Amino acid sequence: MASHGFWSLGAENGGESGGQSPVTARAWCQAAAQKFTGGIGSKLCALLNVGEVEKSADGADKPEAESCNCTTKPCNCSKSNLGFSELYSTDLLPALNGDLKTMTFLQEVVDILLAYIVESFDRSTKVIDFHYPNELLQRNNWELSDEPETLDDILISCRATLKYAIKTAHPRYFNQLSTGLDMVGLAADWLTSTANTNMFTYEVAPVFVLLEYVTLKKMREIIGWEDGRGDGIFSPGGAISNMYAMLLARYKMFPEVKEKGMSSVPKLVAFTSEHSHFSIKKGAAALGIGTESVICIKADERGKLIPSDLERRIVEAKQKGYVPFFVSATAGTTVYGAFDPLIAISDICKKYNVWMHVDGAWGGSLLMSRKHRWKLNGVERANSMTWNPHKMMAVPLQCSALLVREEGLMQSCNQMQACYLFQQDKQYDLSYDTGDKALQCGRHVDIFKLWLMWRAKGTIGFEAQIDKCLELSEYLYNKIKDREGYEMVFDGKPQHTNVCFWYLPPGVRYLEDKVEKMKRLHKVAPTIKARMMEYGTTMVSYQPQGDKVNFFRMVISNPAATFEDIDFLIEEIERLGQDL
Amino acid sequence: MASHGFWSLGAENGGESGGQSPVTARAWCQAAAQKFTGGIGSKLCALLNVGEVEKSADGADKPEAESCNCTTKPCNCSKSNLGFSELYSTDLLPALNGDLKTMTFLQEVVDILLAYIVESFDRSTKVIDFHYPNELLQRNNWELSDEPETLDDILISCRATLKYAIKTAHPRYFNQLSTGLDMVGLAADWLTSTANTNMFTYEVAPVFVLLEYVTLKKMREIIGWEDGRGDGIFSPGGAISNMYAMLLARYKMFPEVKEKGMSSVPKLVAFTSEHSHFSIKKGAAALGIGTESVICIKADERGKLIPSDLERRIVEAKQKGYVPFFVSATAGTTVYGAFDPLIAISDICKKYNVWMHVDGAWGGSLLMSRKHRWKLNGVERANSMTWNPHKMMAVPLQCSALLVREEGLMQSCNQMQACYLFQQDKQYDLSYDTGDKALQCGRHVDIFKLWLMWRAKGTIGFEAQIDKCLELSEYLYNKIKDREGYEMVFDGKPQHTNVCFWYLPPGVRYLEDKVEKMKRLHKVAPTIKARMMEYGTTMVSYQPQGDKVNFFRMVISNPAATFEDIDFLIEEIERLGQDL
Repeated sequence: MASHGFWSLGAENGGESGGQSPVTARAWCQAAAQKFTGGIGSKLCALLNVGEVEKSADGADKPEAESCNCTTKPCNCSKSNLGFSELYSTDLLPALNGDLKTMTFLQEVVDILLAYIVESFDRSTKVIDFHYPNELLQRNNWELSDEPETLDDILISCRATLKYAIKTAHPRYFNQLSTGLDMVGLAADWLTSTANTNMFTYEVAPVFVLLEYVTLKKMREIIGWEDGRGDGIFSPGGAISNMYAMLLARYKMFPEVKEKGMSSVPKLVAFTSEHSHFSIKKGAAALGIGTESVICIKADERGKLIPSDLERRIVEAKQKGYVPFFVSATAGTTVYGAFDPLIAISDICKKYNVWMHVDGAWGGSLLMSRKHRWKLNGVERANSMTWNPHKMMAVPLQCSALLVREEGLMQSCNQMQACYLFQQDKQYDLSYDTGDKALQCGRHVDIFKLWLMWRAKGTIGFEAQIDKCLELSEYLYNKIKDREGYEMVFDGKPQHTNVCFWYLPPGVRYLEDKVEKMKRLHKVAPTIKARMMEYGTTMVSYQPQGDKVNFFRMVISNPAATFEDIDFLIEEIERLGQDL
Repeated sequence: MASHGFWSLGAENGGESGGQSPVTARAWCQAAAQKFTGGIGSKLCALLNVGEVEKSADGADKPEAESCNCTTKPCNCSKSNLGFSELYSTDLLPALNGDLKTMTFLQEVVDILLAYIVESFDRSTKVIDFHYPNELLQRNNWELSDEPETLDDILISCRATLKYAIKTAHPRYFNQLSTGLDMVGLAADWLTSTANTNMFTYEVAPVFVLLEYVTLKKMREIIGWEDGRGDGIFSPGGAISNMYAMLLARYKMFPEVKEKGMSSVPKLVAFTSEHSHFSIKKGAAALGIGTESVICIKADERGKLIPSDLERRIVEAKQKGYVPFFVSATAGTTVYGAFDPLIAISDICKKYNVWMHVDGAWGGSLLMSRKHRWKLNGVERANSMTWNPHKMMAVPLQCSALLVREEGLMQSCNQMQACYLFQQDKQYDLSYDTGDKALQCGRHVDIFKLWLMWRAKGTIGFEAQIDKCLELSEYLYNKIKDREGYEMVFDGKPQHTNVCFWYLPPGVRYLEDKVEKMKRLHKVAPTIKARMMEYGTTMVSYQPQGDKVNFFRMVISNPAATFEDIDFLIEEIERLGQDL
């Protein structure tokens, strides 16, 4: 391993990768030094050269200061003069006179983070330096012990952690619905950590509680609820937001369930499309409703719920004496990116008096785009909506909102009025103590990053970012729809940024035995994906669906991605898959 | 307001406060400049002088560079040369050549944070600059608009947010069970935000998944489970951890509940002490069990569950044909800090075949102390335990663990096997994909800050920190137990750091009419608390309990607190309450 002992930047695991030129740590350092003015170049360079040092038997591999070829002198590549090797966490604040040591230590960490950030956006670096779990366990000492480590060791641990982390900001990281790293969002998250407080009362989070109020109101206005009225909360992810919605729907219909439980109510049934997210069933299991009471409605070939099937199943359930209480329509399904027909669904919900929830965890953000928001037409008729700004709006994880049309319902559904937290004789307006409407007691501050990004971009900035991602996905669709060796999983332009396709390597493409062909094709995507990870060049997801064998699901929510990155992805799939 | 337009450091709302000398922003600036070498003094000073500027009608209040009296020259108090007023978020990465602008912007944010941190630990600053909600809404423009703001505006928003934030790191902030700010924990949280990934699969969070594995195992070893075997997860807070435990207990006894819901099982009942946390009832409401099926067991005068009452109520429930499925013992109650007798409880649970959960959200961390861990004797017999390192171990929010003795149960209880996330044909050991055992889909990375702090302190460092907090609470107890004007809510040395007491101002102390006395006493704590917040000098919680009127509940988890801070609290209560 040529880059042993260095922050890994090159092709440690695989040599040349098509379309990009892997660089050595030293070359990257030289480029960085030239790129930046002032001390930043040498700082970056220094960081790269004192990256995690793997212990070799003879200890000879430790990088020396003279190994650096910075153009900026004096070069501070050797950090031995900082003295962290003799300092411990007990030397930091609140230790007496800990101020300077603390600031220097935190600055050191920030320097590591800044270098990581700049590196993450650089296409010549790897998305991931992949190792199998057992291997990764052995590459570093991750154990916890009785004795403290020095601050120097702590900095080494930080570098090691980042060395093996996924670069989720990387322009070629497409693996999940949440990708990218927004710089204002990141700054806001750093501030949130520093403020280190809890959303449950105004008393301990005055600004954040107000910002949540302002932001939820704005989101409800965008949904189209009159004057932005209603309620809502930021919860730990879309699955929990969906669970909240189901809980509210049940309570709205049978408020006695709170005290008396499910044994006091008739058999409840919920409805959602067969393409919906697994959290609907998971929520039903947790809430004591049971997964069998979630009835899966047929979806069309594009993955959209078929309203006539919904109505048929509701009628059927009623005939059996069950009580339909909840329909979860999906705005942006996980795999196909399909938008259920909300207007037709809302008509049915109204007719049968069923709570209409819209799971817009993935697609809800399209409401920010004047060009694409029609896909959610009818959402204003919903009783509740899940909307995850941490997905399509690229807010750092986690940031998921549940919006509710009826005011006061969350409070009465969830409140327990613990007098040791929600004292009723405080000096301020108690409606700002939002904690009792939550399922949680303590609640993490997820609002500030969204609020600050919104200030920085404006609504039009989010719109531009979203429109661009959709444009990229259309570009990808147009590029591959008639390209040799590709087959689309469904016909037609994608509604969201999901592009689902098979790549058929030459060896599979012309097979006549259909069973054999499907068997071979099923293994293509996993193999290419594993190779992508080993080379570290890009990451994209795949899965089977129903009777369809493994296919790629490309999703684009990373604001760093460009047309060239889409081209790269296709080239990479072909390069890594041509022999299969 | 003399300090109008300045980062507020002084006594804007109340003049002199007993025991501390409020300083003006300028004086603090001068002190800071002398304290630090290099550019840090002038940096700090600069930050203090360009704090949020309130817009006055004539615009005359804007602070000028010349208003600073730094000893370090040249002084960079005027930041106009940085050009952020012409830059937008779109100029930052991933913008072409956005590297330098990004690093400069993030560094600027970090400078603001570093100044806030140093200020937070300074006893001469306020814990809170309190404003009523409507007033706070008007003190700044918090609205979201269509158009973007400049990066300069974003920095101003950051300063404004911190100006009105609670300084949870402040040595005199005692308001919640989670207080203080650990510098290594903070560094780790900044790194976590930068890595911006999701715990659901090894694929996207390799290091963090391994660190969770290592840390949970260590915690299980400390509980006393053989070889650290078992399972667990980090969840969004103690309430959710407790809900997980209840869910597992129900599934263990009646696995069919997952598919068929509560209508398939007999009437389940849970048991917990009348002093337990409200999340037990909240969880029962959510899970469809109902709050009435949570039977509250009597506690003794110290707040500990009475085992004989537990057994009596279990027998009673069985006689009624109900099925006892869950006992939640509390290790460290919220108000009294009481530890339920775990050994006696475990005997009863064993006898009646009921799942034993220990809610150690608050007191679980005492397991880290050789001196205090006996209070949890018997925890090793529990089936599950909630343990929140974000409380007594001062890990930044949020960090809550649920530990489970039986392996594999979480997976079978919660899994939905979504093939688009947990593909079964990946190249690595799939047991590292932990997402399907969670209630959530995406899951925030809460592990790194705990792991890094553990490395930095060692187990003995956490032990020392915890022992010190308990020593402080004993000091407080000894100080006030015989002091004139004080009455303890319960007798005897506190078991945890909770010290519950009434302060009786002279005007109340000698009242003979007992009803009138209680009526007046009930208002004392809220009034003193409101005054504390207006002066911003300290914060401590209060509440009524049962038939007891409002009393103070002092808790100490803040590693920055000292004996002098305890003295200060008592002086402050007397200063603010003497006229009542």
